[in-house]
Amino acid sequence: MRSDPARLRFEISARDGEARTGVLQTPHGPVETPAFVPLATKGSVRGLTSREVDGLGYQMVLGNTFHLLAAPGPDLIERAGGLHGFMNWDGAIITDSGGFQVFSLAHGGVADEIKGRRGEMPGSGAKVEITERGVSFRSLSDGSEQFIGPEESMEIQAKLGSDIALVFDECTPFHADRDYTAHSMERTNRWLDRCLTWHLENGPAGQAVYGIVQGGIYEDLRRESVEYICASGVDGVAIGGSLGKEKSQMYEVVGITTALLPPEAPCHLLGIGEVDDVLEAVSRGVDTLDCAVPTRLARHGTALAPEPESRFRLDLRRARYTTDEGPLVEGCPCEACTDHSRLYLAHLVRGEDLTAVKLLTIHNLTFMEQLGSAARTAIADGRYEDFKRSILSGASPWETEG
Amino acid sequence: MRSDPARLRFEISARDGEARTGVLQTPHGPVETPAFVPLATKGSVRGLTSREVDGLGYQMVLGNTFHLLAAPGPDLIERAGGLHGFMNWDGAIITDSGGFQVFSLAHGGVADEIKGRRGEMPGSGAKVEITERGVSFRSLSDGSEQFIGPEESMEIQAKLGSDIALVFDECTPFHADRDYTAHSMERTNRWLDRCLTWHLENGPAGQAVYGIVQGGIYEDLRRESVEYICASGVDGVAIGGSLGKEKSQMYEVVGITTALLPPEAPCHLLGIGEVDDVLEAVSRGVDTLDCAVPTRLARHGTALAPEPESRFRLDLRRARYTTDEGPLVEGCPCEACTDHSRLYLAHLVRGEDLTAVKLLTIHNLTFMEQLGSAARTAIADGRYEDFKRSILSGASPWETEG
Repeated sequence: MRSDPARLRFEISARDGEARTGVLQTPHGPVETPAFVPLATKGSVRGLTSREVDGLGYQMVLGNTFHLLAAPGPDLIERAGGLHGFMNWDGAIITDSGGFQVFSLAHGGVADEIKGRRGEMPGSGAKVEITERGVSFRSLSDGSEQFIGPEESMEIQAKLGSDIALVFDECTPFHADRDYTAHSMERTNRWLDRCLTWHLENGPAGQAVYGIVQGGIYEDLRRESVEYICASGVDGVAIGGSLGKEKSQMYEVVGITTALLPPEAPCHLLGIGEVDDVLEAVSRGVDTLDCAVPTRLARHGTALAPEPESRFRLDLRRARYTTDEGPLVEGCPCEACTDHSRLYLAHLVRGEDLTAVKLLTIHNLTFMEQLGSAARTAIADGRYEDFKRSILSGASPWETEG
Repeated sequence: MRSDPARLRFEISARDGEARTGVLQTPHGPVETPAFVPLATKGSVRGLTSREVDGLGYQMVLGNTFHLLAAPGPDLIERAGGLHGFMNWDGAIITDSGGFQVFSLAHGGVADEIKGRRGEMPGSGAKVEITERGVSFRSLSDGSEQFIGPEESMEIQAKLGSDIALVFDECTPFHADRDYTAHSMERTNRWLDRCLTWHLENGPAGQAVYGIVQGGIYEDLRRESVEYICASGVDGVAIGGSLGKEKSQMYEVVGITTALLPPEAPCHLLGIGEVDDVLEAVSRGVDTLDCAVPTRLARHGTALAPEPESRFRLDLRRARYTTDEGPLVEGCPCEACTDHSRLYLAHLVRGEDLTAVKLLTIHNLTFMEQLGSAARTAIADGRYEDFKRSILSGASPWETEG
């Protein structure tokens, strides 16, 4: 791994078991870790303005290469001052490589967002074609033939001007066998080299690059992947691919992977963001995580709540909430909880009112930010496992301080 | 007309021609007039929180009896502290009587929102039945038989606890002939008496009641309606019903009506809110107006702009805006205009992103608030006609001060 403070500096200030807290210093300011990273998939955290996301305390968002390629395209974003200028976001940005979405089209079922397309583009009937060079597929915006390989992905991310770019990888699905996963991982390694070669020559000076650990649920493959990545010139690592069938297997895969990483390497976990998963990942040394779940739940009328028995979810469409005058979540400092009652929010959700989406998005992102903030304090205080247990037993993040 | 400062006090501070500026003192604070009143149809200004509406400078919103009857129902709202408590809105609230929506079901085409239903409920096939007692129709929420008459409307509005209630009237459509309009207006007068009788005995102490002037486009009927209302015990008047086929006819009807009103009576114009219409109505003595247009346009990707040649509308779906780096509207103080570019907003609109709705709603309501604020200053300065001409020639509201 390389280390260049002009791109990215990771300062770990405290460790507590495998968990650690610190600051990722990016060209667009610090990101205190561990941190949940909201999705700004198409250049916005859906329903919120950049100003609001900043106001919630977030220091980094994740932009989506695949979606931004479809619209409005990297050239326009580059002219608008990169993704920072385009969406007027002064904080840090991490961009994914586009691989996850493209391979979701091919393998199906990896991403909820494109569920049901299983190998075919909607309406086009055309398969996604994977070769050593890269991946061909049809554009989401106009159905035209598109191609992304390692160089293309890095070039798009260079135009987006993110603080952290991810290398182009094949995201192997859960149903892939060991042989496929092994060959895929080896190709991902070759693609890693091509990404870094392109980036070394053409990448923006301030942009860091994370490698992506693949290898599915196979420990030896994960080990091989981590070793290959660490021997390369990346600035950090992200954990991708299939993490198993059950949560326990996912935690095991994460633990195996982080144990292999150099202790000073920043580590991002891709696409994981359920409350218990965040807690377990952080306890295994993950520094940042992104996930669509908190914002997607908000759009479907569900609030995050300190209720482990219901997967930390409170579904406002349930009849009982239509007459419940209590706050959404007692003690939560967000606008939904301080200003409004459950019955009002339930009414808005039933009426499919955009105000409901707005208030629940604010709430769910506040909940995740409070979870991250409380985790940072707990690690600094050397009581992370107690903190984790108390959240898993139904404490609110804001109740656990000190 | 009655006058009770415990309910409503209208203090006119300056007159300029027929236009006037002042303050409506309600139990929930002052409303500086002339003022545009945003719709909080179902208990929210769609896409915004009550806190945001307050932050935009609005002092009154309009709640909708018909929609709130359908869900969540007046009893629940009453238990939640009335509409103020339910939506956590500390400013003034005016509620309509439900008549407009019910009669839109019957006559069709009066309200854009329920266009195409022309006399039948969607899916029910049942006609709306109008008798001297009131109106029967099927519930929007569950299809059950519902009835609203004058007493029912006032009772619902009493439970909603609005600062200003509107009497239950028949909203005659444009295609009604003189005979129908005359008979309808006479029934509306009888309903006015029943509303006031109910309200005198049962209405909340602080709630003011406005009569609704009907009579279509017929000057003698409008005169008869105004005289009847002014001889009654209402606290103010609203202008409703058909205002003609063209803008010029609408302005004439408004002018005829306001000229007949006592000079100290507060006057609300129902359902009118295009920029030029607001200017013309205010110049004829209208104090407050409500309209769905600014917020509805926002939901469809259209921003209000100082562009009289395009009806003060800027349609962000037009291709030219996808590469336009300029601000939405130069000089506008709202978040959409100060933080973002046209090309970013156009991208969000094309992606049907909720953030677009939020930003355009903020912008359109800022534009209307600035228009009202600039109108108030212009009237106080005795230069309202100059102000009106300059807006109609393409000046921005914030450019016209002093």
